Amino acid sequence: MRLILALDFGGTKLAAGVVNAGSREWLYYERRLSPANADASTDLKIMRSLIHSLLQDVTPAAIGVSFGGPVDATTGTVRLSHHVPGWENIPLKNLLEEEFGVLTSVDNDANVAALGEQQFGAGQGYDSLFYMTISTGVGGGWILNGKPWRGAMGMAGEIGHMVVDPTGPICLCGKRGCVERLASGPYMAQNAREILTNPQAILSGELLKNLVGNNLNLLTGQLISEAAAKGDDVATTVLQKSAWALGLGIGNVANLVNPKLFILGGSVTKAGKSWWDTLQKTAKETALPEVTFEILPAALGDDAPLWGAVALVEEIGRWE
Amino acid sequence: MRLILALDFGGTKLAAGVVNAGSREWLYYERRLSPANADASTDLKIMRSLIHSLLQDVTPAAIGVSFGGPVDATTGTVRLSHHVPGWENIPLKNLLEEEFGVLTSVDNDANVAALGEQQFGAGQGYDSLFYMTISTGVGGGWILNGKPWRGAMGMAGEIGHMVVDPTGPICLCGKRGCVERLASGPYMAQNAREILTNPQAILSGELLKNLVGNNLNLLTGQLISEAAAKGDDVATTVLQKSAWALGLGIGNVANLVNPKLFILGGSVTKAGKSWWDTLQKTAKETALPEVTFEILPAALGDDAPLWGAVALVEEIGRWE
Repeated sequence: MRLILALDFGGTKLAAGVVNAGSREWLYYERRLSPANADASTDLKIMRSLIHSLLQDVTPAAIGVSFGGPVDATTGTVRLSHHVPGWENIPLKNLLEEEFGVLTSVDNDANVAALGEQQFGAGQGYDSLFYMTISTGVGGGWILNGKPWRGAMGMAGEIGHMVVDPTGPICLCGKRGCVERLASGPYMAQNAREILTNPQAILSGELLKNLVGNNLNLLTGQLISEAAAKGDDVATTVLQKSAWALGLGIGNVANLVNPKLFILGGSVTKAGKSWWDTLQKTAKETALPEVTFEILPAALGDDAPLWGAVALVEEIGRWE
Repeated sequence: MRLILALDFGGTKLAAGVVNAGSREWLYYERRLSPANADASTDLKIMRSLIHSLLQDVTPAAIGVSFGGPVDATTGTVRLSHHVPGWENIPLKNLLEEEFGVLTSVDNDANVAALGEQQFGAGQGYDSLFYMTISTGVGGGWILNGKPWRGAMGMAGEIGHMVVDPTGPICLCGKRGCVERLASGPYMAQNAREILTNPQAILSGELLKNLVGNNLNLLTGQLISEAAAKGDDVATTVLQKSAWALGLGIGNVANLVNPKLFILGGSVTKAGKSWWDTLQKTAKETALPEVTFEILPAALGDDAPLWGAVALVEEIGRWE
């Protein structure tokens, strides 16, 4: 019996699971929130205690790791975290291999989740797909020819910073009208705030304002989805723009790489039917008539990175 | 001694070459213009006569074919030609295999040229690259993990119809602001004509008008490059927009797939230093800071499809 240890360094949460190789059920599973003032060493400390609590004195056959940020997957070195300080150039694979004495594989969460969905989720049976996560940010990961495609520097999949509206609002990355700038939860909240505080705006957003008791700092992507579902005009405008940006991005990707399937996960994908309808319609209109594809919701939910970490180990297989 | 026969059905021209396997010099080579009223059967007839003139009574070991239009590379069936009627669903691979009795491999010109540049041209030593041709149209082909990536339906590489300016002019494909709509030679000519015939335009375009003796129907992408090099204001505006659209497209592709190298071929790439400078600058600004790449001019020129057809046969290698 070979045990696989799967770890998820998620930025706001840490999770670990143990599974028998080949099984699709966790033997052990633990999840913790990362403290608000966490840095790399506190995250590592919490993860160590999770691991020891799960494994007791057992040694796993291999470790798979999903990291929420850019990773050099060839060396297993974290480049940085956009959420937690202190992760710059941490050799996470080496650290874990020295500590546990077993082969460890590390990759960023979008690549890992793409692999997880392909092996165990919505992408089973597809040998080419693009997985996208749309929540606080917008990221993506590739499966091409049945295997992860990570790019020359491990940076492939950055659909979040594809420019779809060069005259649009400025993104944190410095460009205008990136997919993430229009489609992510926090940016949707910002876009709604800007309309609601613009004295020239024609839209009222009454319902949305009521939802937050007029405290616009409380706006979130989820509240915008809720208000749009109830017909709020500002929320609908903002949400439609998110779906349009993603749809245009997906259509562009389809023309460019022609994968069979797109899988969409993350909190924003729970925005409801009209968001999905606009996204599907815009994607199909943007793709050439000969370029067909499916767009499916992710199947693994919050556990996608952990299951992907299991798949990462099984993909490599050198530990067998 | 094994002979490879390479064929190029180019839309406006037909070419055939014969080479010893492993050699980089043509034993025989012929090229013809396709007649103005050509259809698939006249093209095939001309190509047959080229082949018989080259080969005499010798049988090649294998045939590689570059076709100027969408091809199902798995079956070697042409989907259609955008330039020559009658090519719909022609099983070109089967036709040639029956006629010559040897293994034949068929793919579209952009994929074939990408492979040619990687094997014999500017992409030697790179295992990931995106080849783009910018002339009457804008197309592209992928090399990933050292091999062609053709997409789930063989449609990968269509950067020409990536939307980069959703409020821009309408493209033949029905969308607004596609890369091809802004960057190709004929569309640059059209954009210049529109400025020159707009009574409200502030730009004069004197030099450009003189170049065509005020007959705006004679405008071409090449004349726009020439006029821009001499400082014409309309030509400069149009050419800069072309470079900007391509640069934005390349930056988006870099973020999304992260290839090591971009290779640019086609007549528009001869537009001069300021076109290249704007393109390089826009591409670098559009890519994330962590996403680095090179952009190089194609090395094989007009023979890229023929050399690519040789590489196509050598890639498959089953004929050995």
